[in-house]
Amino acid sequence: MTTATPSADRTVEPFDAVDVIRTKRDGGRLSDEQIDWVVDAYTRGVVAEEQMAALAMAILLRGMERAEISRWTNAMIASGERMDFSALRHPTADKHSTGGVGDKITLPLAPLVAVFDVAVPQLSGRGLGHTGGTLDKLEAIPGWRASLTNDEMMRQLDEVGAVICAAGSGLAPADKKLYALRDVTGTVEAIPLIASSIMSKKIAEGTASLVLDVKTGAGAFMREESDARELARTMVDLGTDAGVRTVALLTDMSAPLGRTVGNALEVRESVEVLAGGGPADVVELTVALAREMLTAAGRPDVDVEAALRDGRAMDVWRRMIRAQGGDPEAPLPQAAHTAEIRADRAGVVRSLDALKVGVAGWRLGAGRSRPGESVQAGAGVEILRHVGETVAAGDVLAVLHTDTPERFARAQEAIDGAWDLAPEGTELLPRRIVRDRIA
Amino acid sequence: MTTATPSADRTVEPFDAVDVIRTKRDGGRLSDEQIDWVVDAYTRGVVAEEQMAALAMAILLRGMERAEISRWTNAMIASGERMDFSALRHPTADKHSTGGVGDKITLPLAPLVAVFDVAVPQLSGRGLGHTGGTLDKLEAIPGWRASLTNDEMMRQLDEVGAVICAAGSGLAPADKKLYALRDVTGTVEAIPLIASSIMSKKIAEGTASLVLDVKTGAGAFMREESDARELARTMVDLGTDAGVRTVALLTDMSAPLGRTVGNALEVRESVEVLAGGGPADVVELTVALAREMLTAAGRPDVDVEAALRDGRAMDVWRRMIRAQGGDPEAPLPQAAHTAEIRADRAGVVRSLDALKVGVAGWRLGAGRSRPGESVQAGAGVEILRHVGETVAAGDVLAVLHTDTPERFARAQEAIDGAWDLAPEGTELLPRRIVRDRIA
Repeated sequence: MTTATPSADRTVEPFDAVDVIRTKRDGGRLSDEQIDWVVDAYTRGVVAEEQMAALAMAILLRGMERAEISRWTNAMIASGERMDFSALRHPTADKHSTGGVGDKITLPLAPLVAVFDVAVPQLSGRGLGHTGGTLDKLEAIPGWRASLTNDEMMRQLDEVGAVICAAGSGLAPADKKLYALRDVTGTVEAIPLIASSIMSKKIAEGTASLVLDVKTGAGAFMREESDARELARTMVDLGTDAGVRTVALLTDMSAPLGRTVGNALEVRESVEVLAGGGPADVVELTVALAREMLTAAGRPDVDVEAALRDGRAMDVWRRMIRAQGGDPEAPLPQAAHTAEIRADRAGVVRSLDALKVGVAGWRLGAGRSRPGESVQAGAGVEILRHVGETVAAGDVLAVLHTDTPERFARAQEAIDGAWDLAPEGTELLPRRIVRDRIA
Repeated sequence: MTTATPSADRTVEPFDAVDVIRTKRDGGRLSDEQIDWVVDAYTRGVVAEEQMAALAMAILLRGMERAEISRWTNAMIASGERMDFSALRHPTADKHSTGGVGDKITLPLAPLVAVFDVAVPQLSGRGLGHTGGTLDKLEAIPGWRASLTNDEMMRQLDEVGAVICAAGSGLAPADKKLYALRDVTGTVEAIPLIASSIMSKKIAEGTASLVLDVKTGAGAFMREESDARELARTMVDLGTDAGVRTVALLTDMSAPLGRTVGNALEVRESVEVLAGGGPADVVELTVALAREMLTAAGRPDVDVEAALRDGRAMDVWRRMIRAQGGDPEAPLPQAAHTAEIRADRAGVVRSLDALKVGVAGWRLGAGRSRPGESVQAGAGVEILRHVGETVAAGDVLAVLHTDTPERFARAQEAIDGAWDLAPEGTELLPRRIVRDRIA
């Protein structure tokens, strides 16, 4: 058994990757210089994928201090370009959600906030696995396109006030490379790396304020509330350290948000909210996040709900969709086939497992297993009996939608047992969507 | 933030590497089937280097149970061929050292044990970093060659009784690939992986008994005695589980073994031991290991020391060297240049830092920084004042040898402070080489 202890001989680089890995492996603190070097050298390909994989696992199991995560985030930002919204007429407010099942909040939220002369840039992504992607949802609208040039985006922000589009590859390229690595090495769940991944892109986008929607529960990335709380705290600290006014809401993702899971189905429900209706939980979270964004942008006293009731938010929505080639009046795609899930007994819905519903939607064709796969616009799950609602034996609990009916069997298997029924007449506490606020 | 939870969709393999990594990352026990699959799939290239790197780090930080390590070892053995010594006239006894500075013990030990009709196959390696390699040492002997075919090795074992040669690449190829990965990812130090790496090759070699020399102290791979003890325990358990009679000695590597560090220098000292002389520590450890090997091979009552005194061990040595093309009578190479290290004050040597001496020898040209580099036969360190010895101010503590005198400066820097001198007249406890025996 041999080891080459003093490793400075190996390379002309200022550090040796093995020394950096060992430092974190043994529970030490990475120096600023080590962090700057390892992120840059990884981006350059000098630190190999297997070395970063070992470091990511060590970070996951050993953790990082606040100053380390800040430095790591800055190193990721430094790997790419930065955007600048300071030339806009209005202040900017950005929002990020850690993702969930039925989370269509960005769709009504961005136009709603823009009503009040706040510019809302939403650089979004596509879905993977059981969680949906905002771009996939909007692509269900005929004609709508996700890719804009920076100039197009700035013009739309100035003229319409809200833009939801694909993030360019120029922001934090180190993150793109690192995320792909974490995805295949069981290191996605490292809180310092999740936080720096999200925040490096948000800080590089150059927003003045940011509201984070950190989800917890069965359908969330962070199932445990303690993990979600740690992630929220870490991200708020990172934003604050970078001079971005940052606040996080800890929100419930034990059950799906709203009554629809799937791309066109979720657009339809978002339009209902913009029309002053829609499910109470979606409205509650949209309004709560809008208030936070508007407060952070210097508009604390506006009447958010009025803008949903009187059609102003809907007007911005229509202009936002048209600006990106979409037709907000066109009928949305519908799946060719449906199947029903029925209750085998009566009761009151105590809980509805967001993960099971999300996996069912994914298997119906609403989601993808690998980046780059196409999704079905019409596929998904329509929930007819949600948490707190009464069920009679034989009632339809949900309707499954797909263009490819051979998918029904695996979707039914996934959704089996999602509804937990309490005995009839049980009094349940009302569902709290916003669990906490971390600033 | 998204994650593809049920991953069975991804591949036709029975497991997903990410699931295996997550199991260990979260402190779980890998199943037999997971272990068999991951070692085989890594050997086939289906599990990527970055995935194994993350798993190795998780194993290092989370550990493995005895049954997991046994299974992992068996999976590594199954990746390659096995040898079979059962056709030999004599029982076999094998020895493995975890490596150290000045550790030339294999050279006198193999012929010494073979004197008593026990076959000693020593499949050895080359040095890396500050620790030397047995093959590098023997290659200092003019004509000697390390590579033998299996047939040549078996014939030599039968006719001479001892063979020291290069391990073929057919034994545990998974280990070769994994070791190269661990070397660049800061995961060399994972005790389950060290133990399975060593033991997979030893078990695949097919020996009936095995004595392990597990070193501890500054110059050892395991500096801490607790780590060395855990490694020894783990390896003895693995051997026992595989039906090999296995015992480990825990031995001191705080100071170099003997008075020479370097290839030809160590051969010279080994020949002194075979001639009935040599440094007391080298003789003590050679005899202790020989007794263990002979006991394990069913010869507990022989007079080991007599075979050193009366020339029988030297006879086997000469036949062993000649059988591999070497000339045991030829003068050994000498380095072209020497430099002295002198004491700046008087005292008694309380300790002599094996790591510092080993690094000095490496920098003089006796060792290599990367696999494949050549080494100097004559380079190294000759120790004139060892632990327990009295020093006068101005005394020569050591002589450095190299063919390339530009190396002296960095070697002197490395060896600086290696001697810790107690005040003159201090009574020191005698150095104990064998610290413990683990069976």
